[in-house]
Formats: sequence, structure tokens, C-alpha cells
Amino acid sequence: MVLVAVDGGKTKTTCIVFDEDGELLSTASAGPSGVMLASDLVRRNVWSSIIDALSKVDLTVDSVEVFSIGLADIDTRKDLERAWVIVKNLPIPSKADVVVEHDAVTAYYAVTYGDPGVAVIAGTGSIAFGMNSRGERARAGGWGWVFGDEGSGYWIAREALQAAAKACDGRGVETKLLDAFMKRFRLVEPIDLMEIVYRVMGGDSTRIAELAVLVDEVAEAGDEVAIDILDRGGAELASACYAVASKLDMVEEPIVVGAVGSVFKSRILRDSFYSRLERKLKRARFEKPLIGYQPVIGSAVICFRRLNLRDIRSKVEKLRRGLEELSR
Amino acid sequence: MVLVAVDGGKTKTTCIVFDEDGELLSTASAGPSGVMLASDLVRRNVWSSIIDALSKVDLTVDSVEVFSIGLADIDTRKDLERAWVIVKNLPIPSKADVVVEHDAVTAYYAVTYGDPGVAVIAGTGSIAFGMNSRGERARAGGWGWVFGDEGSGYWIAREALQAAAKACDGRGVETKLLDAFMKRFRLVEPIDLMEIVYRVMGGDSTRIAELAVLVDEVAEAGDEVAIDILDRGGAELASACYAVASKLDMVEEPIVVGAVGSVFKSRILRDSFYSRLERKLKRARFEKPLIGYQPVIGSAVICFRRLNLRDIRSKVEKLRRGLEELSR
Repeated sequence: MVLVAVDGGKTKTTCIVFDEDGELLSTASAGPSGVMLASDLVRRNVWSSIIDALSKVDLTVDSVEVFSIGLADIDTRKDLERAWVIVKNLPIPSKADVVVEHDAVTAYYAVTYGDPGVAVIAGTGSIAFGMNSRGERARAGGWGWVFGDEGSGYWIAREALQAAAKACDGRGVETKLLDAFMKRFRLVEPIDLMEIVYRVMGGDSTRIAELAVLVDEVAEAGDEVAIDILDRGGAELASACYAVASKLDMVEEPIVVGAVGSVFKSRILRDSFYSRLERKLKRARFEKPLIGYQPVIGSAVICFRRLNLRDIRSKVEKLRRGLEELSR
Repeated sequence: MVLVAVDGGKTKTTCIVFDEDGELLSTASAGPSGVMLASDLVRRNVWSSIIDALSKVDLTVDSVEVFSIGLADIDTRKDLERAWVIVKNLPIPSKADVVVEHDAVTAYYAVTYGDPGVAVIAGTGSIAFGMNSRGERARAGGWGWVFGDEGSGYWIAREALQAAAKACDGRGVETKLLDAFMKRFRLVEPIDLMEIVYRVMGGDSTRIAELAVLVDEVAEAGDEVAIDILDRGGAELASACYAVASKLDMVEEPIVVGAVGSVFKSRILRDSFYSRLERKLKRARFEKPLIGYQPVIGSAVICFRRLNLRDIRSKVEKLRRGLEELSR
């Protein structure tokens, strides 16, 4: 049985072809396909990644049982409509089963394998997504870099830059963050941080988010302001997780809680996150954070679920090993 | 004596020609000339506004005593260098006196007429700028929309959007802000706010800042969350003002404190701002906020100061009346 999983991200599209045992048959990638982009471009990139991956092993789209496509930027109803219009216009045979999901949903599947619970995803942005035993869904956070994404890499970096600016002005507590930023960019004066953030980085959230690593270093070296930012970040992510569990009446349930994304590399943020949740979700099973998560895996889990297969965990493990071998 | 004042803003450039008594002779405008833009464009717009205004009254650049040019976006040393390169390449006769200043400095002159004190400017962005009796300068805030501008229109709007998102998720306190935003944009679901902020507004700080008026309305109607945002906004601006006064050793001095910009229209923010400062700057004279401030006036005050003229206030009043008559 041939299965196809796609992850359409903001920077690239990944497709894997595999079978119902989790044997990886082939992979391919193409340009970006987040729903924010032009429909034609998204369609072209999704399709070429699929065709490339299949043709490498001499398969055609007719042989595929399930297509699971995860796409970035599906937030509003309009986004989901856009996504469906794009996918419906792909020349997929009508007998095939096709699933399209927000990339937070695919991440959720990668963490919980579809069991009731909540996944908290924190990279450049952040969001919590969950599902209960009745299949009801809820999300919290994920409102983007302007008015959301609390606890994300961008949020951490922005809080740190702000703390540095306040310290420089004499409006805030002294912090080593200012020195750290100045050293990192070899600045002569603190105000030159503006040159870096607005001109060099163009105010871009992805580039700014990369500074979160520096915040963690300064915090690990004992800086109270940096520690406080990471502690608050963990609290924000825990709060989003708890909000989802509440909405889905799962606070007293034996649910799975998983964390996904590079932000959870930070020990301080992680401790803050888990300690707060352990107090509030007493029956939850807390999974180790997935760092270096490959979103296409979540999309693959959805394929297995569609087929009502058993023992998905071992299939996913096999698939992961397949991907690892490939990347060597 | 012919004087020329220019305000080079992010959306347009305004030039006024006037005499040493404050008699308005002529005005002209051109496209934008903030220093963030291409040097050629800035040079062209500044120069055409000057030439247009002079030619309307049959004057040439040779007759001008002082050119005072205020430009947006002069933050770092590099910005100031850029500004000077632009201005030095203008065909201004070498005998003329030429001043180039950050637009926060021109706003400061419009508020204090050059007397020791602090001006707090809060529109789309925010900054505090001050000068003491020894001519020393200091600023606080003004780090832009990513990691500064606390208390600005953008900051208020962002805090309000965030509060609405948190309320919607069940992560925060309930607030009428969510309803207000949904009504304003006729949204079906709260998540559609993302469509508005990121697609319709393109995440643009100026457009988002316009929502601050709505926050004030909701606060005036009694919403505690909205009131808290404006109260914190006022506190942030007061803190920036106090930081400047401290840096310049003016905390115990009889200084002038003035507020400039549309954000000070909000009674709640204004009360928060003044009440905090009155407690901390006991000998300060608090000017009424300048709402509907014309930045070119600040540039004109600099001209008068360069000439060491007396009774600048009445000259400025005359100039203001001249501009008002013209706009009728």
C-alpha cells in the first residue's frame, strides 16, 4: 500500500512516499508552499514534490491510497478554503483519500499519535492544539508575531531586545542582555541595535527569532532578566496548553501532553513549562519535547490513522530511522 | 530675513518659508523623505519642496539665512551620517546656516522652545527627548515597533489585540475589546482578526496603530482590560520621560515637560502620564499636550533659536495662525 505525506512549509515543501509498515520508499522536496503564498506557486511546489518522490521509485499517483498534506498558515476559515481549492485542483485520482491539515495539527499527531491530548508547538511562532476522546478540537495562541506567539523564539527575542533597550535608557533593570547583543553584532553604541533589527534583519520575525538562543545563553550564565523572560515564556506556553485542555474538558483526563520545537531546548523555559502544567493537569502524561522535529512525520501519522492501523508508534519509528539514514 | 523650515516625514515633506517675525510667506510639499528611504529620493523631495515654496514668492536660495531640516528615522550615528550626506549634496549656498535634526528633536523645540526640559512624543511610535541648561541631550524609548515604542498607538493596539486573543483562547481576562474588534471589521469568528492584521493591514505598524482610538473608546465605556492598557501606556511614557530627566540631572530642576501626539488625546492615558510625573518631577511645569502638531513648526523654532531671537513664542503663534489660515 503506497502512502504519501507532504509538509508544505514557509520555506520548503517536503514529500515522503512510504508503505503501511512505515518503510520509507522515497523522498523529494520543492520550494515553499505555505498558504500565505500565491495559489499557483503552492500548487506547483506541492505537486512537484509528490511527482518527484513517486517517480524516483517508478510509482504513479494512481497507486497511492492516502495523501496527507500539512500546510503552514492555515489559520482562518478563508485559509482552509484556500488550501482546499489548491488541493482540489491537483490531479489526484478521485478514489484516493486526501487529508489537508494545519501544520499545528500534523505536529499534534507527531506527538500524540492521535490520542487525546495537547501539543504545544514553539519555534519562530507558537501555538497549542489539542483533541479530546470525542474528536473535538481546540487551539490557543498562534495569533502570529504582531499580537500572539507568546513564548516563541520571536517573542523571547523581542522581550530580550526590549529589556536591553530599557536597560540602556535607564528605564529598566540592568541586564547582561545588552552586552550580549552588542558583542554578538560588534556594535559601537546600543542604538545601533536598531540598524541590526530594522535594516539588516528587516524586522523579519524568523531572523529576529534566531536571537532566542543568545537569550538562553545569557540566562544560563545567571542573568536575572533573561531568566525571567524564559520563565515567563514557559508560563505563557503552559497557559496556552491549559486553555486547550480546559476547552476540551480534559483537565481531569489522562491525556498526553507534548512539546514540539526548538524553544524547548532551553532548560529554564522547559522547567517553567512542565512544572506549571504538572501542578494543573494531574493525570496527564508528559512526553519529552520533540526537538529537531520533522513536520512531515506528523503528516505521515495522519496517513496511518486514516487507515486505522495498529501499532503506529513502531511504524513511525521505522519511518524516522529511514529518514535519518537518508540524511546521512 | 528669509528662513526656511522643512519637515521630512515618512509620508510627505513639508516646507515653509517665513521671516524673522514669524510671518508666513509660503509653503510647499513633496513626497516622503524619511532617512530610511533612498538618498536620491530624499534629496529630490527635500529640494523640490524648498524650491517650490521659494519660487511661489519669487525668492531664490541665495536669500535664505537659515535652513532648518527635520527628518524622520535619524536614530543611529549611521542615520545621521546619511542625513548629512544628503543635505550636503543639496545646492545650498555655503554662507547659509544649515541645521539637520531628528524629528523628535524638532518636536522638542515645538514644546519647549528650546528651554531645558523633556518632550514625550507618542503617535504611531513613541520617544522621549530632552535637553538641559548645559545643552546636553538625552533620549529614551524610540526603539521602534519591534522592541520599543511603549505607550505608542502601535503598542496600545498590539496590547489590545493580544488581550482580545487571550480572552478568546480562555488564556486571559474577558474583555469587550474582542467584541469591539469583531464589530469594527464585521468578523464572523475571532480568528478572522488574523486575516485583518496580517493580510489586510500587512502587519504594518501605522495601520495597526489606528486601532488605538478603538481601545480608548472601549476603555471610556468602562472595560477594565482596555483601561489597564492605557494606564500602562501612560506609565511607560512617564517612565521614558523620567529616564531622560534623570540622565540629564534635571529631576530637581524647574524644567518644561511637554507631550506631543495623538495618543495624548486619551484622557485615561494622559491622566496616567501626568499623575505619575507630577509625583516624581516636583518642580516641572507641565505643558498641555500638543495634539494635531505640525512638525514643521518645531523645525521653524530651531530657525528662530539659531538667530538668537527673543519672544519666540509670539513668533511661533503668528506662524501657526498663518498655517491655519492657509489650511482653511
